[in-house]
Amino acid sequence: MTDLIAMGKRAVQAKTYLQDITTDQKNNALHIAAIYLLEQADRILEANKLDLKQAVENNMSPAMQDRLTLTRERIKAMAEGLEEVSALPDPVGRTLEEFIRPNGLQIKKVAVSLGVIGIIYESRPNVTADAFALCFKSGNAMILKGGSDALQSNIVITDILREALAKAGLREDILQLIKDTDRQVTSEFMKMKQYVDVLIPRGGAGLIRAVLENATIPVIETGTGNCHIYVDKDADLKKAIPIIMNAKTQRISVCNACESLVIHKDIRASLLPELAKALKTKNVEIRGDELTREILSDCVPATETDFGTEYLDYIISMKTVSGVEEAIAHINQYNTRHSEAILTENKDTAERFLRGVDAACVYVNASTRFTDGFEFGFGAEIGISNQKLHARGPMGLPELTTYKYKIYGNGQIRG
Amino acid sequence: MTDLIAMGKRAVQAKTYLQDITTDQKNNALHIAAIYLLEQADRILEANKLDLKQAVENNMSPAMQDRLTLTRERIKAMAEGLEEVSALPDPVGRTLEEFIRPNGLQIKKVAVSLGVIGIIYESRPNVTADAFALCFKSGNAMILKGGSDALQSNIVITDILREALAKAGLREDILQLIKDTDRQVTSEFMKMKQYVDVLIPRGGAGLIRAVLENATIPVIETGTGNCHIYVDKDADLKKAIPIIMNAKTQRISVCNACESLVIHKDIRASLLPELAKALKTKNVEIRGDELTREILSDCVPATETDFGTEYLDYIISMKTVSGVEEAIAHINQYNTRHSEAILTENKDTAERFLRGVDAACVYVNASTRFTDGFEFGFGAEIGISNQKLHARGPMGLPELTTYKYKIYGNGQIRG
Repeated sequence: MTDLIAMGKRAVQAKTYLQDITTDQKNNALHIAAIYLLEQADRILEANKLDLKQAVENNMSPAMQDRLTLTRERIKAMAEGLEEVSALPDPVGRTLEEFIRPNGLQIKKVAVSLGVIGIIYESRPNVTADAFALCFKSGNAMILKGGSDALQSNIVITDILREALAKAGLREDILQLIKDTDRQVTSEFMKMKQYVDVLIPRGGAGLIRAVLENATIPVIETGTGNCHIYVDKDADLKKAIPIIMNAKTQRISVCNACESLVIHKDIRASLLPELAKALKTKNVEIRGDELTREILSDCVPATETDFGTEYLDYIISMKTVSGVEEAIAHINQYNTRHSEAILTENKDTAERFLRGVDAACVYVNASTRFTDGFEFGFGAEIGISNQKLHARGPMGLPELTTYKYKIYGNGQIRG
Repeated sequence: MTDLIAMGKRAVQAKTYLQDITTDQKNNALHIAAIYLLEQADRILEANKLDLKQAVENNMSPAMQDRLTLTRERIKAMAEGLEEVSALPDPVGRTLEEFIRPNGLQIKKVAVSLGVIGIIYESRPNVTADAFALCFKSGNAMILKGGSDALQSNIVITDILREALAKAGLREDILQLIKDTDRQVTSEFMKMKQYVDVLIPRGGAGLIRAVLENATIPVIETGTGNCHIYVDKDADLKKAIPIIMNAKTQRISVCNACESLVIHKDIRASLLPELAKALKTKNVEIRGDELTREILSDCVPATETDFGTEYLDYIISMKTVSGVEEAIAHINQYNTRHSEAILTENKDTAERFLRGVDAACVYVNASTRFTDGFEFGFGAEIGISNQKLHARGPMGLPELTTYKYKIYGNGQIRG
């Protein structure tokens, strides 16, 4: 069985070591890693074949098999991802604040790496390289625990990345992979508070819930998005239908897709028939409350469960309200604090919604699909945080750092 | 049994309502609350007597009884605390960043309240008023769960604060207290993720560990401080002894007190005899490693357990090292990421230590006792965070906020 304590100790050593690495050293290692991935694509594809063979034997679903599959194209994308992160500014070492106290103590608040990041993820082996690039560039040591489905692929990708670190003159233990598939090991890993500073689960709602329930290490929660669009009575319908169609159907399987419409009752008669026609062209099933069904008589009745469901499918729920206050209350009861939008031409109503709705990203007259590191101009992200602590919304490089206070004295003692 | 779900729903409503409250409204309510506490001191003292009577019956230790006891003086301090927080700047609503994307989306990153904060605490009933002031001023709704020892005091203090909210024209449900002493209720409270955004345990190491192990709500961990001072070979001994004495003995029961010395072996002969003499005047027991005991032959041998212990007592452990690297490695293995100090006149060694040691606050030539909201100039604090996420070190009002992105569009959809 994996000696997790030994891995933890090596990670803590690597964490300390990383505090003295320069930006150039990090960028050089990322560049070498990108070259190595391309040069050793055959080695990766061979390992991936073993994983796929086992997946077929285990009757894995085609969608899951697709996620597991690596191709030359996907390996190229992984390599490009490393180069992209290398081009981003180094988030470590920024002076965030600086002040001198009356007793002469000089206090500097400086951005530093989080330390040791644990990442628990599922079948997509490209997460191995993506997560490495972001966590390493932000000065962190990592312990990865990938899905057992992708074990052979993950072992080879990790080996290649570690070889790149060594080639760059850096310690390989910056990146470690848990190769054990025993669930007991994962469970113990989530409690290694003495060695691991932060856990980031990447995967479906089930994985994230399991980590939240079992971890004693602080978790960065990402992913779940039960996103709403509220169509106010003062909405411009020429904007509304394209925005709703985009948010619902441009990509159904993502966390920033719209799952539910909240509709001012005074606008339903003018909005719903045309909207239903547009949704029908994409085969989107509508589940509506009573007032919705007065207009769309053939739609499925919506239940309480519908309002709390992230479908990730061609389904949308509809709830009618009597105004922005009721819309806010409904959304705050059912949403996952991810991305919410109001469509209105009324500035006061818009501001009321922006203040009242509790979510990482709140939009006026735009699609929820913009909640994304690249769309915000931040570059690659480790995920979209929908918790309140630390970072909210797209988590790029600065969000993978914390800070420390450096305090310079000259013999000060407290009176 | 307490209907936690109903409490949660009321807290979410109060959270939304709080988004529209002005700074003046908050300050006015804090001021009324301060007056009410003073005016109704007798009512508080009466309830406190009931708690103390039960404490005596339960054979509570004198130290614990002291923590539980309220006096006119302590009630006055609570009221002054409310006024002090009212005088601090409002942390909500600050624009942290603002930019426009090429597609015309205008993105504003704005400081907002965390939402609903759950606070779980032990016997000190003054925490009720202190926590209320900080969380309320930062725009948060609260659900409090105090220790059952202090239940009667907490009920009355909470009632008075709620009356003050009502008098100020605000909703009482901003502040709710769980009056149930059933452990099962506390356990369920820690899992109310749909309603409570952040949990802050305040109390001893046992309480904090229990919350970390059982909560599914994100926790802000505060409190534990196994703080070290490293005396480098280039230390100025005239500064060293006063700093060590201050950090160890000025107040032994606090998280920023020094628990362990790390000593460069080349300086031990000149440091230790005089230091031991000074420590003896305060009856501090020394537990030393082998090289320490070569100089201080009568001190107790230190074990591995000593190096990992936050004594909160008149005891100090001593570990000798061969240089700053070994000092950093030792500290990073045993510390609790709270406050650490180096004593040296060598600037390079100091910088090496500041970079390498993993802690919220790292000092050069000053006492670790300065890790405190007031000493940093931040004002009242909810605690000293020793985790990496969100806030590190003293947590004042800005640290009780998060942010949201407000995004203004004009029909943008994602391509």
